[in-house]
Amino acid sequence: MTRLLYSLCAKDGQRHYSPHVWKIIFSLRQKGLDHDLVPICFQGIHDIENGRFKSVPVLRDGDHVIGDSFEIARYLDQTYPDRLRLFDGAASFAYAHFITWYCDRVLHPALAPLLTGPMFDMMSDEDRRYFRQKREAQYGKPLAMIIADSHGAEKEVYKKLDPFRAVLAHSKWIGGVAPTFADHILLGTLKWWETCCPELCFPAQDPIGTWFRTCCEIGSDPGP
Amino acid sequence: MTRLLYSLCAKDGQRHYSPHVWKIIFSLRQKGLDHDLVPICFQGIHDIENGRFKSVPVLRDGDHVIGDSFEIARYLDQTYPDRLRLFDGAASFAYAHFITWYCDRVLHPALAPLLTGPMFDMMSDEDRRYFRQKREAQYGKPLAMIIADSHGAEKEVYKKLDPFRAVLAHSKWIGGVAPTFADHILLGTLKWWETCCPELCFPAQDPIGTWFRTCCEIGSDPGP
Repeated sequence: MTRLLYSLCAKDGQRHYSPHVWKIIFSLRQKGLDHDLVPICFQGIHDIENGRFKSVPVLRDGDHVIGDSFEIARYLDQTYPDRLRLFDGAASFAYAHFITWYCDRVLHPALAPLLTGPMFDMMSDEDRRYFRQKREAQYGKPLAMIIADSHGAEKEVYKKLDPFRAVLAHSKWIGGVAPTFADHILLGTLKWWETCCPELCFPAQDPIGTWFRTCCEIGSDPGP
Repeated sequence: MTRLLYSLCAKDGQRHYSPHVWKIIFSLRQKGLDHDLVPICFQGIHDIENGRFKSVPVLRDGDHVIGDSFEIARYLDQTYPDRLRLFDGAASFAYAHFITWYCDRVLHPALAPLLTGPMFDMMSDEDRRYFRQKREAQYGKPLAMIIADSHGAEKEVYKKLDPFRAVLAHSKWIGGVAPTFADHILLGTLKWWETCCPELCFPAQDPIGTWFRTCCEIGSDPGP
């Protein structure tokens, strides 16, 4: 049986740039579950599994097809309870919801303009038309201006990682004594960033950098 | 044996306005541990237990004297493991650190100017001199201007509670299936707010309001 994970991808079929898909890539690695990544462009999302989904990730695991990263993580823990757990008790679910909010509402809005240029550059012409239209409507300005206005935004994003630094001052993992889905949520954000900006680098003394490098060693790394 | 919790208080000795002390009041209530509140003014903090502490809360529990709300919560769980737990596993500690950061760095800076006026009004003349000096140095403007500039800031604070709403959309408690220290951290913030602004009220449909009222029923309520 081949486990399939549909993943938003550059036109080269190699660079995966959905933070939400990365959460599941790391979840599967942590649980030691083999999987094939199925590269999908923006325009291809609606064709996944006969058009049942409007976003990625989508996981096909035998006869089971599941969408939404949080739901997939819950499914993986329920289906493979003998593997390392993604959630460590009830507090772990609540914590993951809090971190999801923080990444979606604080980090991603700060990162999205910064990554708009690199993403645009690596996608197909068809995706570019869709992406340009969506981003320009979202920000109310031309793509070139979104990109120009984002210069120097890295500093602000680095600062917004402070709550994770506060956690890492007390434990090796965001999740506590072992990596959990809470780790994979932030990992998703940072792998999206690194895929778009391979020069991404944290200062040597920054605990985020140490944690990020350790996390990336979980399983093998198929990309970018 | 009388358990003593030193608590920053208005000159009436009744209205306790330290968010960090409230965390421990709720922690003690959850664990069903009797305690007496010892009202302390700002100027009295340095005299607590022979001047060993620079902030409240400070808990005297028999021969043990502990400062810092997080340390006190850990002490209570270690010392009274048969009572309801404040931390539910390793994720619960990490989660509490994340929420502590969010309250201290996002909610409190937004609330502090708003509560400056009510706090000033309810403290002793001696505390007023200290408090005015500290706040004016912090904000770089006269106390009257800090207060005037804070009008309407409630809306911004309500909005900053959104990550907790995201959690409460999935569970009854911030901590998950039972109240934990994660709940008490936000409770501390809201009791500080309510002590200063007794008219504090959340819309009927706001899950924060429902959660807040439920939490306040844990044990008895000695104040404000």
